[in-house]
Amino acid sequence: MKHPVTFEITHVCAQSGARTGILHTPHGDVETPMFMPVGTQATVKFLSPEELYALGAGVVLANTYHLWLMPGEDIVAKAGGVQKFMNYDGPMLTDSGGFQVFSLADTRKITEEGVAFKNLRNGDRLFLSPEKSIEIQNAIGADIMMSFDECIPYPASYEYAKASMERTLRWAERGKNANQRPDEQAIFGIVQGGDYEDLRTYCAEKLVEMAFAGYAIGGTSVGEDKETMVRMVDWSQRHLPLDKPRYLMGVGAVNDLLEAVSLNIDMCDCVLPTRLARHGNAMTSEGRIGITKARYKEDFGPLDPKCDCYACRNYSRAYINHLLRAKEGFGSRLMSIHNIRFLLKLMEDVRDAIKNDRYNDFKAETLANMKFDERGF
Amino acid sequence: MKHPVTFEITHVCAQSGARTGILHTPHGDVETPMFMPVGTQATVKFLSPEELYALGAGVVLANTYHLWLMPGEDIVAKAGGVQKFMNYDGPMLTDSGGFQVFSLADTRKITEEGVAFKNLRNGDRLFLSPEKSIEIQNAIGADIMMSFDECIPYPASYEYAKASMERTLRWAERGKNANQRPDEQAIFGIVQGGDYEDLRTYCAEKLVEMAFAGYAIGGTSVGEDKETMVRMVDWSQRHLPLDKPRYLMGVGAVNDLLEAVSLNIDMCDCVLPTRLARHGNAMTSEGRIGITKARYKEDFGPLDPKCDCYACRNYSRAYINHLLRAKEGFGSRLMSIHNIRFLLKLMEDVRDAIKNDRYNDFKAETLANMKFDERGF
Repeated sequence: MKHPVTFEITHVCAQSGARTGILHTPHGDVETPMFMPVGTQATVKFLSPEELYALGAGVVLANTYHLWLMPGEDIVAKAGGVQKFMNYDGPMLTDSGGFQVFSLADTRKITEEGVAFKNLRNGDRLFLSPEKSIEIQNAIGADIMMSFDECIPYPASYEYAKASMERTLRWAERGKNANQRPDEQAIFGIVQGGDYEDLRTYCAEKLVEMAFAGYAIGGTSVGEDKETMVRMVDWSQRHLPLDKPRYLMGVGAVNDLLEAVSLNIDMCDCVLPTRLARHGNAMTSEGRIGITKARYKEDFGPLDPKCDCYACRNYSRAYINHLLRAKEGFGSRLMSIHNIRFLLKLMEDVRDAIKNDRYNDFKAETLANMKFDERGF
Repeated sequence: MKHPVTFEITHVCAQSGARTGILHTPHGDVETPMFMPVGTQATVKFLSPEELYALGAGVVLANTYHLWLMPGEDIVAKAGGVQKFMNYDGPMLTDSGGFQVFSLADTRKITEEGVAFKNLRNGDRLFLSPEKSIEIQNAIGADIMMSFDECIPYPASYEYAKASMERTLRWAERGKNANQRPDEQAIFGIVQGGDYEDLRTYCAEKLVEMAFAGYAIGGTSVGEDKETMVRMVDWSQRHLPLDKPRYLMGVGAVNDLLEAVSLNIDMCDCVLPTRLARHGNAMTSEGRIGITKARYKEDFGPLDPKCDCYACRNYSRAYINHLLRAKEGFGSRLMSIHNIRFLLKLMEDVRDAIKNDRYNDFKAETLANMKFDERGF
């Protein structure tokens, strides 16, 4: 099967086995491994498309659940798709909506057909199925769509994890058959199976038989410890074909990203940089700093002396401290620019290290030089 | 006396007597008549300096009261002044802080020395005097500083208006003598006198004797009707020297701006464009539109088809409607860009009309083509 999104490996690190590649999409090529900034509601918080280009953003993620409810996928379709709607002329990816639906744990009801739930905003009864998810994603029009899956909690019983994974496989097949724009929009399958090696193996193998354009690893970052997460990712990835892109969902902490690359992950996304930005936390080469603290009031240096972003080249910690204390939107904008650039630059450095066959050294040095809190960022 | 800010008349309209000019400042020249965007807390809401340049902003206003309380004028001074602090390499103006102090009507106490009041944020007792205002403004470092005056309410008794105006004159003299950076920062005097012609005349004449770099007309837009405002402005301006810039404070509605230009006003400022933007109101060539209304959800045209701003060139009403409903900062940013550009473009058109000796025609056409609400915008 020919997919509109293809992947090409450009180098394999002699030291680590990690790889660089190029993801080819209808909206352009992107180098991997890469971090994808999240534009939940068809906007990456506070930023213009021109700023995203300048940051080196490749793929931007948008959320199906949010755009379905507001403004509605029909309006996005009438605009000519999400890229035209938000004026971002680059590759985009939409999630399936499943993660948001399953986060609303109290009100949802799962059947073989799909998931019934209530819109918490207005009480409307809604229903999302594999076909409906792809229908919405087809209307939104991103280059990469995600299969509708169940993201189970951690820990989950073997029986529940198995039954859910098998349903996720049936949903993957249904979603694949529902794609009305297979020449413009590719679908990635999602490996589930909780913390059970045989379930992860089985799920990966069955998805590969369906021949998706790429594969995501789901069901991580749901409360498990770091070692468990690494195990889940490793069990999943080793049964995936090396010539397809692999996407680890919801990961944006520096140590997790570096670990993911070691496990042949090519794509990651996370709201972490923009969420930290909103709360006044800058991701820096020395670890995280809470820029609204009094100690930065008279600090006229940049957020991160090693950063090349617009915020660091032009504004002081003192000014950003002031803007955030004064609740000025330009402060959040500068923080978003910086944190997103921080992760995009990290991935640039990751790619350089792989190309220079020294990824293990790079990873060890980076982790040794950076201060982390207990969550790893 | 030699001022660091000077004014040059470039054309007088044969039809209306209105004039164009150039304001020369240490941070560059600006054409007049002009509208000055307000950057209260050393930032024009949501916008970067580069966006302000692209919009054609000349002078940007910052608020002394706000910067005094946060981050403190000492921090702005340590940054090298407000332009360095906020990275805006253009002319700036600070108000005196008086307007904000007098707005806190319940807690202030006025004496000959100055005004005692409470900081509503933390209950701190504060004191602002003509000398203190200029001391703070010297630390902030804008090209143009404003005299510390009392902005009296409307209506006010003749006795109160007279006593207050006489004190404002004494304060103007004291502030002028307090300027520690007369070669870098100019001071404008402010004409007060309420709705009394003889008081306005007297105040203007006495200020002119003190030879300020420019003159502002204060005590308007405080609740009086439009006719009264025009009278106050006219009584004040006709006693001011033609070769000095005149600044009408707090005016940003289209009809008021056009009227002000007829009365030889060269500079205006107002929070109106950014405040309207925050509340989802776009200023357009057809009048004001509330962009969050349902009727714009599927309107894929620009905010204003006649506008050349970044928002109108790249984004639809539908997208901005979505962003504002979703409470996304990028929506407020696009609205701010548009509304500020709308007023800056209006003033560009005003200057063209004056230079073409058809300002009266332009004014009549503009007012006839634009729909206004009862407030005149």
